[in-house]
Amino acid sequence: MIENSYYSQEMHGPYGVHDIGNLELEEGGTIRGCKLAYAAFGTLNEARDNAILIPTWYGGTSKIIEQVYIGPGRALDPDKYFVIVINQIGNGLSSSPHNTPPPAGMANFPRVRIGDDVRAQHRLVTEKFGLDSLALVAGGSMGAQQTYEWAVRYPDVVKRAAPIAGTAKNTIHDFLFAETLVEAITSDPGFNKGFYASHEDVREGLLRHTKMWAVMGWSTEFFQQNRHKVLGYSSVDDLVINLMYDLFSRMDPNNLLCMAWKWQRGDVSRQTGGDLRAALSRIKAKTFVMPMSSDMFFPPADCQAEWRLIPNAEFRPIQTIDGHLALLGADPDAISQLDRHLSELLATGT
Amino acid sequence: MIENSYYSQEMHGPYGVHDIGNLELEEGGTIRGCKLAYAAFGTLNEARDNAILIPTWYGGTSKIIEQVYIGPGRALDPDKYFVIVINQIGNGLSSSPHNTPPPAGMANFPRVRIGDDVRAQHRLVTEKFGLDSLALVAGGSMGAQQTYEWAVRYPDVVKRAAPIAGTAKNTIHDFLFAETLVEAITSDPGFNKGFYASHEDVREGLLRHTKMWAVMGWSTEFFQQNRHKVLGYSSVDDLVINLMYDLFSRMDPNNLLCMAWKWQRGDVSRQTGGDLRAALSRIKAKTFVMPMSSDMFFPPADCQAEWRLIPNAEFRPIQTIDGHLALLGADPDAISQLDRHLSELLATGT
Repeated sequence: MIENSYYSQEMHGPYGVHDIGNLELEEGGTIRGCKLAYAAFGTLNEARDNAILIPTWYGGTSKIIEQVYIGPGRALDPDKYFVIVINQIGNGLSSSPHNTPPPAGMANFPRVRIGDDVRAQHRLVTEKFGLDSLALVAGGSMGAQQTYEWAVRYPDVVKRAAPIAGTAKNTIHDFLFAETLVEAITSDPGFNKGFYASHEDVREGLLRHTKMWAVMGWSTEFFQQNRHKVLGYSSVDDLVINLMYDLFSRMDPNNLLCMAWKWQRGDVSRQTGGDLRAALSRIKAKTFVMPMSSDMFFPPADCQAEWRLIPNAEFRPIQTIDGHLALLGADPDAISQLDRHLSELLATGT
Repeated sequence: MIENSYYSQEMHGPYGVHDIGNLELEEGGTIRGCKLAYAAFGTLNEARDNAILIPTWYGGTSKIIEQVYIGPGRALDPDKYFVIVINQIGNGLSSSPHNTPPPAGMANFPRVRIGDDVRAQHRLVTEKFGLDSLALVAGGSMGAQQTYEWAVRYPDVVKRAAPIAGTAKNTIHDFLFAETLVEAITSDPGFNKGFYASHEDVREGLLRHTKMWAVMGWSTEFFQQNRHKVLGYSSVDDLVINLMYDLFSRMDPNNLLCMAWKWQRGDVSRQTGGDLRAALSRIKAKTFVMPMSSDMFFPPADCQAEWRLIPNAEFRPIQTIDGHLALLGADPDAISQLDRHLSELLATGT
């Protein structure tokens, strides 16, 4: 275990924590007493059919989902829906390398896959909330990977699905990009094979990791049109340090690596012996596939190719020059497009 | 000085070497006895008006230009033109960190700018070949940066210009990308602040540098369409190691950093107090602006914005999914488009 005040109720709460017991992992390990942190908004109705599940993205927690996506009058309206945001394993609030006691923590934390997260979340929503139906599963980036996994794995539970800025099967290009992020961290001598005394020992690696996020995370248009200045940052360096590194520099390197490993290997076709068409054809949810138009991680063409394989799906790209990081909500127009599509999706009968 | 058999007549020759004397640099340093390596093809005609100058790109030498772009029946036809390929400072054949004797070599090699290269090349073509006119200056990537610099700095010399996959003023996004390449190298403990015993001491940094080239250098489409397999590489890793790292792993890290520093700061508006419009309006050459359609370094939109500021220019994008690295010539269709445009440009009267 390692002290890190970033992962706290003060920074990211209020959130609840539920122990789902031992979680046996696809790669062979076990997380003993696996804890999932979640934040819930609104009230479950009597029919128990108004629950929405939102999984989290790389480096994100339930807090940013709450801040950017949930609110009265929004698509994810707590006056109408019971919205549960579940923090993915490794994100620092749920069971993660940094908060797992010896000997299984830090670099010894076992390999986790997207499918493990989704099975764990399924336990949470059934055991804790008694749900057998989700009106919607929606998530961005790694949240989209989990959304696809939910829709393929539990087709009778998931009534609607909104994978945003993410794919059902990760591309080899995106795998390679994530590998450069991993190596930015692991190549820092302060990383010490994952057994550092403090995440601050890895500050240089985390800064390189941050810069690579800045290169691929926004878009060339974003910088050409001086969007960073509009957002209050005087230069690219100012944006990199005071927006992006301000976040990544507080995070635990092993936590990031745990998530990156999952992200690289997200692939629903593991459920069907590698047949992506067969996997996606299992989806019963009404699905809106929503890439960001300028996304360099998960380009629209990649998302569109998957959309064609989903039985009851619509392709709803979001127009923005904020790239993948439009998910952060800095482009209000992108967020309003998202809200409009999500509202429309929620209005469809199932 | 450091031994490196990669930079040799055996690997990249035959090439000539011309000493242009001391080169005082824009940043204040001096390269004493600055040597430019060049390869010449064809014969200068009596009117001395059939010379074509080709500057080189990051990590490239005159050899790949010869192999991919020059030949009888091609646009750059040595039966018709006198084609001089001049190796940029820092590329390992011309004066570079690795081949400069102490105390000025390795990490002490002075900062060089694109403008320094072009002034040095101007000395070479006037002193050595007595040229006061160039029928064409054409180059890719950093070669495009030098092409723009030539056309702005010597408007009466350059009759035609073909900047390919590059910009006149580097974007801040591309600056940031190149910074991640720099840091991949400098963060390797074996780099030892630039005073390593062998480039092999920096092998891990060079490998990270290579992978980031692979992420940004091709395109997502390239991998989705399995172009790497078409080219004979069984996986992305196979491509990264056996095509890209096979080259970069032999290069000198300080040489790469010298070129990267220049690349980041390429900007013809330095000649006009920061006014890009004023700089580009100086160009008298008939100019074809030729971005690669899928280029993530120098996207077509960035090149198009500059094209609008050039008096006598046409916008001629090359359709390819090979991204920036289409320059390497693996997409024969891209190369044939290039040839067609260059032939047309050379046929225009001036």
